[in-house]
Amino acid sequence: MKRTLIKDLKENSGKEVTLQGRVQNVRALGNVTFVVLQDYTGVIQCVFETAPESKTGDAVEVKGSVKEEPRAKGGFEIQAKELKILADNKEELPFDLANPKLQLQLNTLLDWRTISLRHPKNQAIFKLYDILLKAYETVMREEGFTEIKTPKILEAASEGGANFFKINYFDKDAYLAQSPQFYKQIMVGVFERVFEIGSTFRAEPHFTTRHVNEYISLDGEMGFIESFRDISAMITTVLSKIFKIIETEGAPYLEMWKCKVPDVPKEIPHVKLSEIKKIVKEKYGYEIPETTDIDPEGERLAGQYAKEEFNSDFIFITHYPWSEKPFYTMPSKDNPDETEGFDLLFRGMEIITGSQRINEYEQLIENMKKKGVKEAGMEAYLNVFKYAMPPHGGWGLGSERVIQQLLGLTSIKEAILFPRDVKRLRP
Amino acid sequence: MKRTLIKDLKENSGKEVTLQGRVQNVRALGNVTFVVLQDYTGVIQCVFETAPESKTGDAVEVKGSVKEEPRAKGGFEIQAKELKILADNKEELPFDLANPKLQLQLNTLLDWRTISLRHPKNQAIFKLYDILLKAYETVMREEGFTEIKTPKILEAASEGGANFFKINYFDKDAYLAQSPQFYKQIMVGVFERVFEIGSTFRAEPHFTTRHVNEYISLDGEMGFIESFRDISAMITTVLSKIFKIIETEGAPYLEMWKCKVPDVPKEIPHVKLSEIKKIVKEKYGYEIPETTDIDPEGERLAGQYAKEEFNSDFIFITHYPWSEKPFYTMPSKDNPDETEGFDLLFRGMEIITGSQRINEYEQLIENMKKKGVKEAGMEAYLNVFKYAMPPHGGWGLGSERVIQQLLGLTSIKEAILFPRDVKRLRP
Repeated sequence: MKRTLIKDLKENSGKEVTLQGRVQNVRALGNVTFVVLQDYTGVIQCVFETAPESKTGDAVEVKGSVKEEPRAKGGFEIQAKELKILADNKEELPFDLANPKLQLQLNTLLDWRTISLRHPKNQAIFKLYDILLKAYETVMREEGFTEIKTPKILEAASEGGANFFKINYFDKDAYLAQSPQFYKQIMVGVFERVFEIGSTFRAEPHFTTRHVNEYISLDGEMGFIESFRDISAMITTVLSKIFKIIETEGAPYLEMWKCKVPDVPKEIPHVKLSEIKKIVKEKYGYEIPETTDIDPEGERLAGQYAKEEFNSDFIFITHYPWSEKPFYTMPSKDNPDETEGFDLLFRGMEIITGSQRINEYEQLIENMKKKGVKEAGMEAYLNVFKYAMPPHGGWGLGSERVIQQLLGLTSIKEAILFPRDVKRLRP
Repeated sequence: MKRTLIKDLKENSGKEVTLQGRVQNVRALGNVTFVVLQDYTGVIQCVFETAPESKTGDAVEVKGSVKEEPRAKGGFEIQAKELKILADNKEELPFDLANPKLQLQLNTLLDWRTISLRHPKNQAIFKLYDILLKAYETVMREEGFTEIKTPKILEAASEGGANFFKINYFDKDAYLAQSPQFYKQIMVGVFERVFEIGSTFRAEPHFTTRHVNEYISLDGEMGFIESFRDISAMITTVLSKIFKIIETEGAPYLEMWKCKVPDVPKEIPHVKLSEIKKIVKEKYGYEIPETTDIDPEGERLAGQYAKEEFNSDFIFITHYPWSEKPFYTMPSKDNPDETEGFDLLFRGMEIITGSQRINEYEQLIENMKKKGVKEAGMEAYLNVFKYAMPPHGGWGLGSERVIQQLLGLTSIKEAILFPRDVKRLRP
């Protein structure tokens, strides 16, 4: 008999069906045994009068009839007659996947990632991640952006210089891309508005709850802007639409995590970095170290300020110092020690970095000289600024941080299927 | 005055507007000058009574009024009053972007990629690529697949062994992923149906019109199959839907290339590799070398056979020999020298490789031993087969090859924004 999907049970009420899927749990109650079965379209309870030989985690086929049952989730259950095991566990599961709470240490969770991902709460994280990807793709196209894919193997460790992974590329050295920065700017000259969803590699040796060495960046870049405010306005629109999609399509997963999507205000507050440092000191008595742009504790307090002062889960921190920003960042006209560069914090953590870029060749070369950046390996990128690049700018959005902050996960590694850090290259 | 987009001119008929975009060409005819302007939403002709100081390629702002003009493409033109240059070319363009045909040698095309991409026919290639990505995402979700992102940095050069790029990963060696193979199989245990759009790296030293060292693979993997025919059937559905979307949304770009999307037959012909070798020899007098699975000339003739015999642009070549296929490929039950592995040819070129995979731990280990594959570095992957993996299989689709074959491009490098080969790491 042909397989019926769990999502199609309604149309099969009263009929005999064959289901296939994974056993989420088995529970005996009096004379009957309940087997909760999951396939890629949903979850259903199967009621057996004779206890089947099956355990949590088995891949099985169940035959039975579809019965209306108002007390069951979804309104149906299966009066099951037969269970056939298609594949079973050769060894005992390392933890109880049927337990609603899978309380594992981060290292255990990740060492056993291939199995811990099967737990419904972990599945929910990556269902939300799937919806985030879909939402970004959809919204960016709605806003007129063209999707591009740019190379991750680079000739030179450009763009600042540090924290690049080196590759053996045949008889040469090459480097893994830290961002699609140069390529997305070049593509503004082609399509005016472009976006990319791509792997990004950072050889940063720190070991924190918010950094990994490989992640997925959601990039955007747009031309014919008047100032960086056109970019922060576009980000506001994009996030607002994305969270609406997540709220609707991700409802069951958000519920499992008891989380709500944030309201994105029509206008997200913008505060200068120099201002927020003062505010955080005055209001919360915390001094953001001078040497950094803003540290994690500073970000947390800036987020607290945004919530208290503007009832906003988001805040743009603007006008980052010239000394801290890469050479392509547009310096501010009224204060050349500052730039048209900004971060966006979501619930007290940076999720976006963006800026207006320099679009005139002479200004770019001059800025590089001031910063002591060499032209070697960047010739093709620099050359494009001789050919009518309009004023432009863009952003990089850390996809996994969105999910981390949305669900309040302690570590970003919980929001990545198979995270990579200094110590972790497996699974 | 606020910018009006070219797509919104219809609603602004008779009104004064300000447009921004790039000049595609400038043409003087009698007393008037025609400036064709492109923004990210379209193209419009602007008619000047006084010739403006502008050339092909400039980024400009045009003020004028919107006039109905039945002879113009789209039914409108701009009676232009003023043109302001926002950014111009500091050096002469390396070739004439206004020429409808940009006949460049491949090396020139690619050396000047940052500018040659601005030519409308090259833009069209990557608009079609954008639509392909959108279509794959859309269709895979319709078919119940969850989008995943898996790591591109691997601990071990597993999966066969050769042709991996090596990375310096802090104090260790690591390798760039040749495919998401192991991870997508693991994820079948989590979501049953998964897909990935991701960068793929192959350190193959050959220099051909169909290979590059970095490309975007469109992967799919699905559980609870009965045989590889479930996979080839899913591929048929997916391609059929994708080409419908490309046909509709890509119409103007296909027209520029004078190309038509293929009809995907309800059932794509399946021919065994051993059979197609005989057929190609008998019908076309060409002997496919014994040592390879199938060579490019053999693929071309197999494609010709599919067209002549079945009027199909597609053909599945099935049952690849056990000796040629990686250790995870399911051997055929009736003939263990063959496998449940296949390729799909599109107009005589392989675009997909797929197979049913081995899903039982013992069989997998046994197959590895026979092939002399070591377990080192694959422990986590192998371990998952102890935990109830259902019968499954999937495919990898070379995204750029789809566009190459669709448009009849001589080299795959024309279908990649910034291609990477043995000699080419820039731009």
